[in-house]
Amino acid sequence: MTKTNRSLTICIRLLWLWEKSLLLLLLLPNFCSTQTIIKNLPGFSGDLPFKLETGYVGVGNKDELQLFYYFIESERSPENDPLLLWITGGPRCSSFSGLVYENGPISFSFTSITKHPVELVLNPYSWTKLANIIFLDAPAGTGFSYSTTADGYNTSDTIHAKRASEFLQRWLLTHPKFLANPLYISGDSYSGKIVPIIVQEITNGIEAGIAPSLNLKGYVIGNPVTNRKEELNSQIEFAHRMTLISTRMFESTKRNCKGEYVDVDPNNELCLNNLQAFEECISRLEESHILAPACAPGIDDDNFLSFPFPEQLCRVERQRYSEVWANDMNVRKALNIREGTKAEWARCNSSIPYIKDVRSSVDYHRNLMQKSLRAFVYSGDHDLKVPHVSTEAWIESLSLPIVDDWKAWFSNNQVAGYRVGYSNGEYHLTYATIKGGGHTGPEFNPRESFDMIERWLEHSPL
Amino acid sequence: MTKTNRSLTICIRLLWLWEKSLLLLLLLPNFCSTQTIIKNLPGFSGDLPFKLETGYVGVGNKDELQLFYYFIESERSPENDPLLLWITGGPRCSSFSGLVYENGPISFSFTSITKHPVELVLNPYSWTKLANIIFLDAPAGTGFSYSTTADGYNTSDTIHAKRASEFLQRWLLTHPKFLANPLYISGDSYSGKIVPIIVQEITNGIEAGIAPSLNLKGYVIGNPVTNRKEELNSQIEFAHRMTLISTRMFESTKRNCKGEYVDVDPNNELCLNNLQAFEECISRLEESHILAPACAPGIDDDNFLSFPFPEQLCRVERQRYSEVWANDMNVRKALNIREGTKAEWARCNSSIPYIKDVRSSVDYHRNLMQKSLRAFVYSGDHDLKVPHVSTEAWIESLSLPIVDDWKAWFSNNQVAGYRVGYSNGEYHLTYATIKGGGHTGPEFNPRESFDMIERWLEHSPL
Repeated sequence: MTKTNRSLTICIRLLWLWEKSLLLLLLLPNFCSTQTIIKNLPGFSGDLPFKLETGYVGVGNKDELQLFYYFIESERSPENDPLLLWITGGPRCSSFSGLVYENGPISFSFTSITKHPVELVLNPYSWTKLANIIFLDAPAGTGFSYSTTADGYNTSDTIHAKRASEFLQRWLLTHPKFLANPLYISGDSYSGKIVPIIVQEITNGIEAGIAPSLNLKGYVIGNPVTNRKEELNSQIEFAHRMTLISTRMFESTKRNCKGEYVDVDPNNELCLNNLQAFEECISRLEESHILAPACAPGIDDDNFLSFPFPEQLCRVERQRYSEVWANDMNVRKALNIREGTKAEWARCNSSIPYIKDVRSSVDYHRNLMQKSLRAFVYSGDHDLKVPHVSTEAWIESLSLPIVDDWKAWFSNNQVAGYRVGYSNGEYHLTYATIKGGGHTGPEFNPRESFDMIERWLEHSPL
Repeated sequence: MTKTNRSLTICIRLLWLWEKSLLLLLLLPNFCSTQTIIKNLPGFSGDLPFKLETGYVGVGNKDELQLFYYFIESERSPENDPLLLWITGGPRCSSFSGLVYENGPISFSFTSITKHPVELVLNPYSWTKLANIIFLDAPAGTGFSYSTTADGYNTSDTIHAKRASEFLQRWLLTHPKFLANPLYISGDSYSGKIVPIIVQEITNGIEAGIAPSLNLKGYVIGNPVTNRKEELNSQIEFAHRMTLISTRMFESTKRNCKGEYVDVDPNNELCLNNLQAFEECISRLEESHILAPACAPGIDDDNFLSFPFPEQLCRVERQRYSEVWANDMNVRKALNIREGTKAEWARCNSSIPYIKDVRSSVDYHRNLMQKSLRAFVYSGDHDLKVPHVSTEAWIESLSLPIVDDWKAWFSNNQVAGYRVGYSNGEYHLTYATIKGGGHTGPEFNPRESFDMIERWLEHSPL
């Protein structure tokens, strides 16, 4: 079943076109991109029934950042379906995590008796059934992406976003057939902060007439980090709403901490006691979904594969599969990973220096509200990491007129959540909850998330 | 495999002993009770691996109320384990519903391809693994219970409770070996209102020295109806806490309705509009568990059996099984149901006249707080019928000192909910939530509910 992968290296001299001045600039240097069409993957029996391309795109002044991506063509109509750039959060978590645990066409099988070798199965609710998706490992150091210089690893919210936007521009130069497809920037969790900055970068580029001109239509963010302090603060209210703390504790905590649970006066003992009680109440929960099985304390990560298969895998255990898989030399060969570029693949690589230089992305949304764009924000409503409570608060703070009031939306003939539509004429924002959902929509509610994104991408009511 | 059922009719001349006056009264008439040990049940292959007795106990002045019960001996140690009287709510729902869908040793199999014939399977989390349980069909007209007079069907909260307490007294006269077992009165939903009244009746009897003296230890109520108006009012807050309505809608509804959502001024259009929007948001949910599959609208009840087996049965469809089963003549024969007493068995028989003469049972709890009793209240925290919000409010209104503050409790090494302990010395009240639970604890969370009741009955910390 093994077929030779077709590997292609394309070098392009960059052209930046300033629309206003009609000034044609030739900027140095050229950049090169590698592309490989992958026919088979270890762990998946037979040929892949979808078109997977992996590759590197060089960004930065000297192509020093080599950003790795997985591109999957829409299984429906690649030429007409939208193009999504997907960035998994963290920051510094590989988008392979999004691909394999969320909205990509393959996922791990968790039903085998043994954990090894890792087995891949098809995901019937892959978003690639209706969209072309680039899963990008960014910033450099994330997943299989790397930098040829030490300095290339120094990054921040704004640098990350700028590089991702540069990536997209260059990727489209080598994939011109997707230039006309409606383009959406997407991601969840920490990407909630990055996606609006990328969108801002792209609109800046479009307005500046930079070629190629991207057909940007909007953005999609799930359980988005927006203002971390606000999100952490909202955990207290969320915990009360979900009855993880009692009303008595909630009132006492609010009163003693004066509504501020992050920047706490170290002399405020009453508040500190309240917060300790809160911590005790939530410490043994799976933070990404309060109803999902949490990992037993003291799980020895290094011996993951030698553990017996439990009744129900906890999230961290499921996530370990990606590391087993991506550190397998056969997998790297199949994916055409450049040898010697990545000693160990980590789902999230927190060793890369990262400066959080954007406190809140609300101002970006506020700015994008002046553009002709469609925004989609969804929240699994059982997520304690980024509670929907804070997401709803910042959306409301935009003071956008409601054009479609809060109402249930359906999937499989069941209430799948609630949605509300805002618009100021040019800018349209849809917010949806996923009832019983968690931090990562498609991970916990694949069918509902698929129906949701399909309708939204097709401009249908949720 | 069929064995002859041993049927026994016992008549007893009632003896009422007044302890204080030592006056022995012989009251007319005698009363008779029928008991049958059931060895086999249609739908269950082989002999029942537990001891099931069914029977009738006559109560009322002339034994005109013939109350039917299912008694299952503890599968552990019948002579030492507690004795529970279980009454399913409604009011007027058969306790067979509790037995087969909640905490009894058998349940229906919902995995077959065809719905007919109905198949019974063992419930590994039956509370009969640790307690003797009488599942009582009360008031008369409920389940297989009936009245020999038309007037016997006229009932109310207080009459219902009085008759249930009379039943228990008489049942124990014919089962004296259980007189010494610790006795708990239990039930859920509407029984939340009835159980405290029964407990009051029994303590009155004990204090009056009525023989036999019951070894009453306490009571257990799950998602209990207590004050219907308060519960309905709390649905708005619950819906907001669970994000079924938006914060904007919640604030507007609170403001326009002034916090009163039941007794609404018919001229208050703003409030009525708010309530209509609320109704629309919740109308397609399964009220007993907002995350459980709701029935598709327009399900034709009469043709239930001819429907194809869906992916996941909704609650009402599951409940139909009991009606198919209990209306089967072979089942009635096996249960030793008196012929001609029950034309049609309904899970809930709302055609019986019933007067709700107790607005709130909080005063009963307040009175029982003066006794030496143990009370256990639990709430599935995803129940919209009787939201935990109102349950917590009335418990707090008792102003009992907290002796064991709000903390997580565990089952299967996972947070199964939260619990708090109150005590005034003699009276101990434990309140527990079941995280991700619904209206009927053991129905939605069998394992957690089993662990919970086991620990509580054994005086262990939850």
